[in-house]
Amino acid sequence: MKVVFIGDIVGNVGRDAVKRLLPWIKNKYQPHIIIANGENAAAGRGINAAITRDLFDWGVHGITMGNHTWDNREIFEFIDDEKRMIRPANLPPGTPGRGYTVIKAGSKELALVNLIGRTFLPPSECPFRAADDILEELRGRTKCILVDFHAEATSEKIAMGWHLDGRASLVVGTHTHVQTNDDRILPGGTAYLTDAGMTGPRDGVLGMDRDSVLHKFLTGLPTRFQVADTKWILSGLCVEIDDSTGRATKIQKIRVDEDSWIAE
Amino acid sequence: MKVVFIGDIVGNVGRDAVKRLLPWIKNKYQPHIIIANGENAAAGRGINAAITRDLFDWGVHGITMGNHTWDNREIFEFIDDEKRMIRPANLPPGTPGRGYTVIKAGSKELALVNLIGRTFLPPSECPFRAADDILEELRGRTKCILVDFHAEATSEKIAMGWHLDGRASLVVGTHTHVQTNDDRILPGGTAYLTDAGMTGPRDGVLGMDRDSVLHKFLTGLPTRFQVADTKWILSGLCVEIDDSTGRATKIQKIRVDEDSWIAE
Amino acid sequence: MKVVFIGDIVGNVGRDAVKRLLPWIKNKYQPHIIIANGENAAAGRGINAAITRDLFDWGVHGITMGNHTWDNREIFEFIDDEKRMIRPANLPPGTPGRGYTVIKAGSKELALVNLIGRTFLPPSECPFRAADDILEELRGRTKCILVDFHAEATSEKIAMGWHLDGRASLVVGTHTHVQTNDDRILPGGTAYLTDAGMTGPRDGVLGMDRDSVLHKFLTGLPTRFQVADTKWILSGLCVEIDDSTGRATKIQKIRVDEDSWIAE
Amino acid sequence: MKVVFIGDIVGNVGRDAVKRLLPWIKNKYQPHIIIANGENAAAGRGINAAITRDLFDWGVHGITMGNHTWDNREIFEFIDDEKRMIRPANLPPGTPGRGYTVIKAGSKELALVNLIGRTFLPPSECPFRAADDILEELRGRTKCILVDFHAEATSEKIAMGWHLDGRASLVVGTHTHVQTNDDRILPGGTAYLTDAGMTGPRDGVLGMDRDSVLHKFLTGLPTRFQVADTKWILSGLCVEIDDSTGRATKIQKIRVDEDSWIAE
Ligand SMILES: [Fe+2]
Ligand SMILES: [Fe+2]
Ligand SMILES: [Fe+2]
Ligand SMILES: [Fe+2]
Ligand SMILES: [Fe+2]
Ligand SMILES: [Fe+2]
Ligand SMILES: [Fe+2]
Ligand SMILES: [Fe+2]
Repeated sequence: MKVVFIGDIVGNVGRDAVKRLLPWIKNKYQPHIIIANGENAAAGRGINAAITRDLFDWGVHGITMGNHTWDNREIFEFIDDEKRMIRPANLPPGTPGRGYTVIKAGSKELALVNLIGRTFLPPSECPFRAADDILEELRGRTKCILVDFHAEATSEKIAMGWHLDGRASLVVGTHTHVQTNDDRILPGGTAYLTDAGMTGPRDGVLGMDRDSVLHKFLTGLPTRFQVADTKWILSGLCVEIDDSTGRATKIQKIRVDEDSWIAE
Repeated sequence: MKVVFIGDIVGNVGRDAVKRLLPWIKNKYQPHIIIANGENAAAGRGINAAITRDLFDWGVHGITMGNHTWDNREIFEFIDDEKRMIRPANLPPGTPGRGYTVIKAGSKELALVNLIGRTFLPPSECPFRAADDILEELRGRTKCILVDFHAEATSEKIAMGWHLDGRASLVVGTHTHVQTNDDRILPGGTAYLTDAGMTGPRDGVLGMDRDSVLHKFLTGLPTRFQVADTKWILSGLCVEIDDSTGRATKIQKIRVDEDSWIAE
Repeated sequence: MKVVFIGDIVGNVGRDAVKRLLPWIKNKYQPHIIIANGENAAAGRGINAAITRDLFDWGVHGITMGNHTWDNREIFEFIDDEKRMIRPANLPPGTPGRGYTVIKAGSKELALVNLIGRTFLPPSECPFRAADDILEELRGRTKCILVDFHAEATSEKIAMGWHLDGRASLVVGTHTHVQTNDDRILPGGTAYLTDAGMTGPRDGVLGMDRDSVLHKFLTGLPTRFQVADTKWILSGLCVEIDDSTGRATKIQKIRVDEDSWIAE
Repeated sequence: MKVVFIGDIVGNVGRDAVKRLLPWIKNKYQPHIIIANGENAAAGRGINAAITRDLFDWGVHGITMGNHTWDNREIFEFIDDEKRMIRPANLPPGTPGRGYTVIKAGSKELALVNLIGRTFLPPSECPFRAADDILEELRGRTKCILVDFHAEATSEKIAMGWHLDGRASLVVGTHTHVQTNDDRILPGGTAYLTDAGMTGPRDGVLGMDRDSVLHKFLTGLPTRFQVADTKWILSGLCVEIDDSTGRATKIQKIRVDEDSWIAE
């Protein structure tokens, strides 16, 4: 099967990019399943019910989250009922929502797992052991498994890639909002990319207004960050998985910006 | 002028990659000046006199460093005398060595600046103000300016790109050891890449043995990290600069691994 | 001269404690000058104009701040004009307000210095060098110098004590909201206490409602912290300084809670 | 029963203080059980077999550890066999040693629990849930329970005090090496002290040579820290517990330094 993964969608600019580009993506990559990270979809902080609905309406099949999961309080009202949305699995016991799910689209089934890192991020349970536990639970259910590891440190992400090599179809990082150029298929058959990158304003800083961010770095004074009002970039990847083995056979980065797409 | 920048060289594997690939790089990119980050060149931690000499002998014109600058104590013996090697400029007053220099090669001159980030890294002086001060000192001396911003957080690196847009020819990040896929030329004419990536063992974690790193993540127990003994990857970029204005006209990522190169 | 220093005042509970106890403190310790840390005086976050006025009206002569200086935006309106209030001196150049001042009360003069640490706190300039610079500027002006070093790590605070031994009359830490039991006079004549402790709700966590804080530690979910509604504790110290030399001759911790005071 | 707890023993200076003062402590406090934190006993980093034997010979009944548990590799040889020594319970599954134990001395039994914090410290399991689990396992076995919570942040330590109030006899913090002045008995009967303080060189920085520490803060250069060669301080506490209920009835801080003791 072919799966497209779209990196952290940031605010209205990112949502517009998704809405406009999805038909083009569907046509170009012919994905059976489309997954997107939505932790910054609502004004850069969290997600809400209307945006979730929109993403599904436009053709997204599953949504992953990250450290911004709870930034918009509306999520508490629907996350327990929305089986197509997951939050990091290694949050404390009792956390609302679920950490993995199985996405169905047509005849295809893809297990979707969300984990969060611990380096430079708030405390959480061990993501490596959480991954082991989930893969054990998924055994016999589906061989096609996509892991979104939301983490800051490249060391932790690459270590997770090796840890899951041969057990997941794709390990893709999110959170840094910058796509990395290390796409590869590991020896055991796991496609890997340290970070998918961001889908949002191209000319800000991680999607936020760059003057505010620079002001913060220069003065340390309290600063309001707003989603930048610039042209967009869409970042993600397309992975091809052998359904019978769960092994990835191809990984392609997707990086399109408003200018390059118009040119197309 | 054309400048090639090579990302963090890690241990003997990284040094071998540089030695073998430099003739091919010179032939393919025809650079006037070659710069490399050497903070991990000696067994992954720091650099020494013999390795420094080797790098210059093989054709490197200037060396930048980072948070691992002092890991090998030998550096204290020669850093004050070696004008082609720089360490982050925003370390405390009185730090040995220099934070910027001007590299000459043939008729070409390139100012080389090294800065270090403060997010998720030990305290240092403000890198944004340090950059301002150095650019002021370089005014009238040379328009071609390469800044290696050694930092962890994508936000701080992108902010530095915008901060220096129109004032530096290239702002390239180092330290995460993973090349990013966001190469671009900013509106003011500054070429930008969040991270150049690593030059070293391809199948480790940031160049170190992956079993050790995974053991550390899983157990927290003290673990000796050694440079991984795997095939190599070389990461970097080539930038073209208009000598008369200092503006970048082209930026190309370089990512070669032992397998793909042999195939060539 | 005798100086009383009152540790971080937290919210209405802390302000009430100050208001009620100051007459008793004045009577018991007979201080010439009273200083208080006010960074949490307004609902636990920052300070405002009315509270500042109250503190001065009740008998406080000088106010120091910390990492919460800017939490209440009202401060930007008056900090430049209020010479009796200081914020950490080692914030970036251009920061509103001042980092040291000279407090006058009757015939007594006391230089007041505020610094902030860098370990486990956001980036700032080097507090040790900032201290050196300020002490140099104060040379010849007054020998009686009180330094409030607002910092998290005990190592950084103790190091500052030694760094300033013989140059300041008192180095007192703030920020952890827990009074330490290491009051002493260092060999050079500087009185030292790692943390003065908090003046606020006795039965919360650092002055905030304990159920909320525990909820945060247990779940990681977004949690609103409010000043706890419990009995108060007042924490601080009294130091005696030889005016002619600036050397401290005595340091006494002050720790009074609502119950013990009523009993008196 | 009466229990004396001795804070982090640092190096030979700290060990000498323990050896010399234990007879005096036994005489003055008449403790049934003596516990000490030994994470810095061997040259400031970890502990070894000979030192462990000495501490037990001198009258210590149980040893707790912290983030420095594994600094001296010798510990791996004996920690699994030494039932009177514990390391933080909330380290990853599979960690050598144990996280709690029951100490017997004469007719008295005391459960001893060691936990480590997560704020400003490397990742570990949730200490609050680990405490819950251990207390559940101890239920019906002994009511007298001493918890050494090795943590940096005052917030996390105070929160643990409230979390265990009524379930442990004593919650005492270690790690900052500075004794706090907030000893109290919480409403549920748990004695509490945020930090017991250090037993080691009085005139260093956390027990290490102060010039080296200051050099590190000022320059950021690699610096060798050695145990300071100064007079000692011994820090700890004595708690009285009602054996039939496990409730604390009295808590007294212990703070003795070489000068004050000689004077006695
Ligand atoms: Fe994000
Ligand atoms: Fe994130
Ligand atoms: Fe590096
Ligand atoms: Fe680095
Ligand atoms: Fe405070
Ligand atoms: Fe503070
Ligand atoms: Fe310790
Ligand atoms: Fe410790």
